[in-house]
Amino acid sequence: MSGPIVVDSVAALRAQIRDWRQDGQTIAMVPTMGALHDGHISLIRIALEKAERCVVSIFVNPTQFAPTEDLDKYPRQLVRDLDRLREAGAHLAFTPGVTEMYPAGFATKISVGGPSSGLETDFRPTFFDGVATVVTKLFLQAAPDCAVFGEKDYQQLCVVRQLCRDLDLPVEIIGAPTVRDPHGLAMSSRNAYLSEVELGVARNLNLVLRQTAAKLASGGDEASAVGEAAEALVRAGFRKVDYVAAREAVTLGPRRQDRGGRLLAAVWLGTTRLIDNIEISPA
Amino acid sequence: MSGPIVVDSVAALRAQIRDWRQDGQTIAMVPTMGALHDGHISLIRIALEKAERCVVSIFVNPTQFAPTEDLDKYPRQLVRDLDRLREAGAHLAFTPGVTEMYPAGFATKISVGGPSSGLETDFRPTFFDGVATVVTKLFLQAAPDCAVFGEKDYQQLCVVRQLCRDLDLPVEIIGAPTVRDPHGLAMSSRNAYLSEVELGVARNLNLVLRQTAAKLASGGDEASAVGEAAEALVRAGFRKVDYVAAREAVTLGPRRQDRGGRLLAAVWLGTTRLIDNIEISPA
Repeated sequence: MSGPIVVDSVAALRAQIRDWRQDGQTIAMVPTMGALHDGHISLIRIALEKAERCVVSIFVNPTQFAPTEDLDKYPRQLVRDLDRLREAGAHLAFTPGVTEMYPAGFATKISVGGPSSGLETDFRPTFFDGVATVVTKLFLQAAPDCAVFGEKDYQQLCVVRQLCRDLDLPVEIIGAPTVRDPHGLAMSSRNAYLSEVELGVARNLNLVLRQTAAKLASGGDEASAVGEAAEALVRAGFRKVDYVAAREAVTLGPRRQDRGGRLLAAVWLGTTRLIDNIEISPA
Repeated sequence: MSGPIVVDSVAALRAQIRDWRQDGQTIAMVPTMGALHDGHISLIRIALEKAERCVVSIFVNPTQFAPTEDLDKYPRQLVRDLDRLREAGAHLAFTPGVTEMYPAGFATKISVGGPSSGLETDFRPTFFDGVATVVTKLFLQAAPDCAVFGEKDYQQLCVVRQLCRDLDLPVEIIGAPTVRDPHGLAMSSRNAYLSEVELGVARNLNLVLRQTAAKLASGGDEASAVGEAAEALVRAGFRKVDYVAAREAVTLGPRRQDRGGRLLAAVWLGTTRLIDNIEISPA
């Protein structure tokens, strides 16, 4: 099986997309920061079901990292990523450098309100500005019919949906279920940072979220349920809990206690920050 | 001659654009706030030279008005505007209502740095955020090949160019020369606010700018030339001078005194604010 076409310039990307369009082919995009794992592969599989061509971008976007964050140590492994793309059947890898995306003099920022309020933003205040700006650029560069985002980054998925609706970006956003290891740990490129001992602790995150979501689904009091969840996470060995929160599933605003919703959490293990989330079933 | 197609929904706009695209036709857009005058008509004429179809949007964009500004009294005259579009040969008028452009829950803002710094922004701090957001939406709704903007709003033209470059919006931006009355007054929808006496004063704005640009082109000291210009404007009867400034012509950053550039001004006559600008020829 031949590997994906690899392009690192917007011009070459557009030329290939134009060729496919002239042949009447539809295009699905999967934006990634590389370090591809089974979660990404599942997004590519969905993209290939939705459209005739699958474009995967690999770009570690500096504008969504704060100066204190892990931009420099974020895993980069392009050769292995291209192998995985070949196995998965992706048609094109777009691997721009930083100056291709942000040439000298770049000065524009997109801020999405609504679902970006709170949660991640309380701890990473400029994160979603970086995400919204790079996603808009990628969509305008590749002009896909649809794009697949993992529910693992649930708030990001909500923000991208809001972004497309607000700016009239003609791209259908598809949310894909989180892929987990046999112990329930959500796949994440940042799992590579974890020691064996930390991995053992990390596997409790989904367990606690599942127990808490079950309590909430059966009408349990929200404040005490999320408070107990935070305590349980600390007891399980997490160094710090940034948040555990139950929210309405689309706007991420306050949830009506008799309705479903989404339970989201961010926790620390050593210097590694992990996030996860789970549906709260309607009562 | 039949009039333009008039649509007020994004869906109807896109359906028409799709039909034209299927016939292989190119599309030029002229974004306006209505109250069309000869300046706008000149933009439409250029659009018709550049593309086979000309789409004119008429939308008084509330997000680019501050609460203290003239949103409510801004002239609205759709029937007359459609007459003018028919005479000019425009093919489509897009006349969305506010809720079509900003449905409930709308929450996204685009901020362009670079050329938006200073000048208008010192006096209308959120103006260019409103412009950048609505222009991005219009471009994503209509997907034109090119769009024509008047040099009358010179800083806006620079900001829109920066916006398209930064976000990879695939729209060619064409700047069009300012249309003036026989006395040099730049055409503006806000001229309708002026009394006969104020009109007489207003006609001095371009005169002072031309004299000042000539001084600067022949190497005159910038600080003293713009200072004298501000004094001359007050002597001519303007109530207040927001700014007179000489800038580099693309970035609107500081100008090298031995180079060309752009001379820009904003002044008040009663409750009406007027802007104008003029090239500073290279020495």
